[in-house]
Amino acid sequence: MELPAILAVARGDRPADLLLRKAGLVNVFSGEVHATEIAIAGGVIAGFGRGYEALEEIDLDGRFVAPGFLDAHVHIESSMVPPAEFARAVVPRGVTTVVTDPHEIANVLGLTGICFMLDESEGAPLDVLVNAPSCVPATHLETSGARLEADDLAILLSHPRVLGLAEVMNYPGVIAGSEEVLAKLRVFRGRPIDGHCPGLSGHRLSAYAAAGIGNDHECTAVDEALDKLRAGLTIFLREATNARNLRALLPLVSPLTERRLCLCTDDRHPADLLEEGSIDHLIRIAIAGGVDPVVAIRMATLNTAEHYGLRDRGAIAPGRRADLVVFRDLAAPRAEMVFRGGRLVARNGKLLSDDQPGRPRRVIPALPPTVHVDPEKLDFSIRATGSGVRVIGVIPDQLVTESLVMDASLRDGHAVADPGRDLLKMAVVERHRGTGRMGLGFVRGIGLKRGAIASTVAHDHHNLVVIGADDASMRTAALAVAKSSGGLAAAEGENVLALLPLPLAGLMPDRAIEEVRDGMRALLEAAHSLGTALHDPFMAMSFLALEVIPALKLTDLGLVDVERFEVVPLFV
Amino acid sequence: MELPAILAVARGDRPADLLLRKAGLVNVFSGEVHATEIAIAGGVIAGFGRGYEALEEIDLDGRFVAPGFLDAHVHIESSMVPPAEFARAVVPRGVTTVVTDPHEIANVLGLTGICFMLDESEGAPLDVLVNAPSCVPATHLETSGARLEADDLAILLSHPRVLGLAEVMNYPGVIAGSEEVLAKLRVFRGRPIDGHCPGLSGHRLSAYAAAGIGNDHECTAVDEALDKLRAGLTIFLREATNARNLRALLPLVSPLTERRLCLCTDDRHPADLLEEGSIDHLIRIAIAGGVDPVVAIRMATLNTAEHYGLRDRGAIAPGRRADLVVFRDLAAPRAEMVFRGGRLVARNGKLLSDDQPGRPRRVIPALPPTVHVDPEKLDFSIRATGSGVRVIGVIPDQLVTESLVMDASLRDGHAVADPGRDLLKMAVVERHRGTGRMGLGFVRGIGLKRGAIASTVAHDHHNLVVIGADDASMRTAALAVAKSSGGLAAAEGENVLALLPLPLAGLMPDRAIEEVRDGMRALLEAAHSLGTALHDPFMAMSFLALEVIPALKLTDLGLVDVERFEVVPLFV
Repeated sequence: MELPAILAVARGDRPADLLLRKAGLVNVFSGEVHATEIAIAGGVIAGFGRGYEALEEIDLDGRFVAPGFLDAHVHIESSMVPPAEFARAVVPRGVTTVVTDPHEIANVLGLTGICFMLDESEGAPLDVLVNAPSCVPATHLETSGARLEADDLAILLSHPRVLGLAEVMNYPGVIAGSEEVLAKLRVFRGRPIDGHCPGLSGHRLSAYAAAGIGNDHECTAVDEALDKLRAGLTIFLREATNARNLRALLPLVSPLTERRLCLCTDDRHPADLLEEGSIDHLIRIAIAGGVDPVVAIRMATLNTAEHYGLRDRGAIAPGRRADLVVFRDLAAPRAEMVFRGGRLVARNGKLLSDDQPGRPRRVIPALPPTVHVDPEKLDFSIRATGSGVRVIGVIPDQLVTESLVMDASLRDGHAVADPGRDLLKMAVVERHRGTGRMGLGFVRGIGLKRGAIASTVAHDHHNLVVIGADDASMRTAALAVAKSSGGLAAAEGENVLALLPLPLAGLMPDRAIEEVRDGMRALLEAAHSLGTALHDPFMAMSFLALEVIPALKLTDLGLVDVERFEVVPLFV
Repeated sequence: MELPAILAVARGDRPADLLLRKAGLVNVFSGEVHATEIAIAGGVIAGFGRGYEALEEIDLDGRFVAPGFLDAHVHIESSMVPPAEFARAVVPRGVTTVVTDPHEIANVLGLTGICFMLDESEGAPLDVLVNAPSCVPATHLETSGARLEADDLAILLSHPRVLGLAEVMNYPGVIAGSEEVLAKLRVFRGRPIDGHCPGLSGHRLSAYAAAGIGNDHECTAVDEALDKLRAGLTIFLREATNARNLRALLPLVSPLTERRLCLCTDDRHPADLLEEGSIDHLIRIAIAGGVDPVVAIRMATLNTAEHYGLRDRGAIAPGRRADLVVFRDLAAPRAEMVFRGGRLVARNGKLLSDDQPGRPRRVIPALPPTVHVDPEKLDFSIRATGSGVRVIGVIPDQLVTESLVMDASLRDGHAVADPGRDLLKMAVVERHRGTGRMGLGFVRGIGLKRGAIASTVAHDHHNLVVIGADDASMRTAALAVAKSSGGLAAAEGENVLALLPLPLAGLMPDRAIEEVRDGMRALLEAAHSLGTALHDPFMAMSFLALEVIPALKLTDLGLVDVERFEVVPLFV
């Protein structure tokens, strides 16, 4: 609908498409809730107030209407499903816009992966806005499936749903003024540039902010967040599956600071999305923690929209998109209806399109195969060249590890796993190029008594990672995953106990998110049956190969001492 | 200085250009004041915190440092001096950026006038950002010196200091969806579009907001402002010379609404600028009215910067411009030092460049002559064609007038002024094109007992307006102004009592603002000696020709009944 027609509706000279009667409008501009009627035309709010007429009316019976929620920073791949399926989980929760960093798939497939996420979110009942992954690969101490330089990223500038540059995790590079990093910042000059700087403070924080970084989502303590806020970074309060920081940061929320705070989920797994929710869950946590409901909603709407310069959304006002969430309880908003561009798209926790029986499922185009592992080369044996070994020490619920040294368990001149001492063998198999290259080491704290687990989800390079109590089980798990073109598996001896294929880049299946959740449950049951006590040993394993988080990690190039930032020998 | 060098300063690896020690930093992000040191390099803030070194240091001894103030909306012409001279008045007050609408000079000289303001502000110690005048001429019921259509305005888009579209006063045109108005909105789509909608509410307000208008500075009451705030307009709180709205609107300022409020001066005359101040005066009024000082400063800095998308200023943070105001009293900030781009530009109320003896004054290029009045055609006589006349009734301190009908005073078949009944003659002489066209009428409430006053400042067309007790005095005053290529004059009989030439477009002289203030004082004394009791009869007169404000006004085309929006006969 053209502007003159919308103005005619606003004036009351022409009926609206839709009128929401008896609404409690959550007004994020004035910070209040006011009773009104909301007229919608051409996908936007035409006006509110009494006296409008419309082709269709809905009596909300006093329910509240808030702007659709925005997720300020999320990796859709962490939900283990493609964008349209992710939308099925979050839209019924009231999320109508997400700013996503597709850096998982970008590490596997480069621009092809990013374009897949853009294409697969086209037409979804969710606005998927993309920030270009800034750190592919994360470092030179790994083999990723792709490398994205400034010139590669520049290609993305012209896409209408690409906003800016995604989390610049290479903060040492920014601070040092690395030309490779500054070139990427220059490409995105004048656009949003996301940050990622856990624990940064003082002069180094000043330098990071001076480079034009706009936000940070890695704060874990109020003092850290206040420092960053003072330096001009907008703080994204995060509640991810594996990093639950929101409650600890709530004391930061005050009338004076609130405008510079946004809510984000970063990484949420299927079970959490389906059971707790998405941004709506964070809003409820904030309100339960004492934050005024309108302020909590503002942190998930106007603040994020303003931060990213999205002037067409984030508020209910004439001329803005009619992305709306209807709910009954202001103290614990749970979406009953969700409108996107003025159309009802979800009701009572389900997408409306889900209710259409016989509707064909969206067909996901095949991506190129990305798991190239030669079974002949899968030899996990370690010839002993010393008596002591470096061991990665897992700390439950943390991404940082300890760097331990233990006596090797030797058999026939080889170092082997020794579950009795919780000493398991770990391998990271290069899977992008079929080089057969493999890093081998030992890990303590996973707790398998027997068998093995394997996965192609291994941040951020997503090589094939496997941990086990014996080489045969490791081989079974790894081959199960490799034959499925990627995925997760648990195995014992020659038996595959559970398998979740993830053929899309080794990260996602073409399946419903509920099936993925169920598949994950079966995998965890199998892993627990093998003796581990960790809540999610697959997630713990997926971060043991991430060589930007201290202290000792394993990549396909070998053991990495993160503090020295170099590969170190296994034997000491 | 390039970014790598600034990063080196931020890290502490290279000395800063300037270090401000013992500063109380007014942090508009965190909403607090914190003691720190501020390192400046290459014109921007490199960092703050302890441990920086610098080529030059200033010990602030605990003084406060705030971001340079922004004026969200000002007509520089109302200060009656060109931009560089305006800067002399406001920069020492702490104002480092203004968003200006040059619509006075645009009505006289069109794009030439706008370019004059852009050129004359180039190199001034003040960032003069321009919004393109949207309503030139204001209506079809007047003759202005120029007409600007959408295509003309589009030329301005490429200028680096042109932000968006200035106050769209033709709100009826917006609401009605006038193609001429919508064409201008389309040209500036995605850029700031300023509003002007006194008293607008309800469906018409919805339509105005739906068209993409971003703000309004015409609110006079809290309820009116709240309505507009709810509809998504940012509210500019105004304290002009002739419209002092700030105190009445302070109850609107709350922690929940503050982010959508900015401060603006709109129109301030030389005496007010020099004696009360500019935005600093508004900040003091707000604080005195109970607003938290950091919030008051935020309304004059971050809020305005964010509203206009100026991400390089409005806060003291690494990477932002080092536009800074230093002051001692947080309860009543008065600038002691002002920095622009890291350079000290004003101290203790004066521009530093003013202190350089023998420095040549900036030479203003001549503008084309704009006052074309043929003395032969200056015949103010009115042949009577009836016994009753419509009379403009002046209401002190308001821009609206009454529409009166009085008995004409007749002499020799002509209607004449009758000071005994406070019935003065008024003429509006077309002065742009030398047509000799003149509107004639009567006015009550100016109160001259004898003599006349004349001016080429007459909103918005700025024709030559003259009011007098007799035709001879009117002729003397009008000719004095015309011979000076524009200006203000008071006369009695054949004697010019006072004259302030305004040769630049008939709006400004090439003189120091202090001289203009003194010239205005002499004019007002002369006018008061002629019997008027109005504080400023010239200002009252300047709005009697503005046919967009009710009820009865006079343009060169004749008497305008503003409510009927048409020319009406003088005699009834």
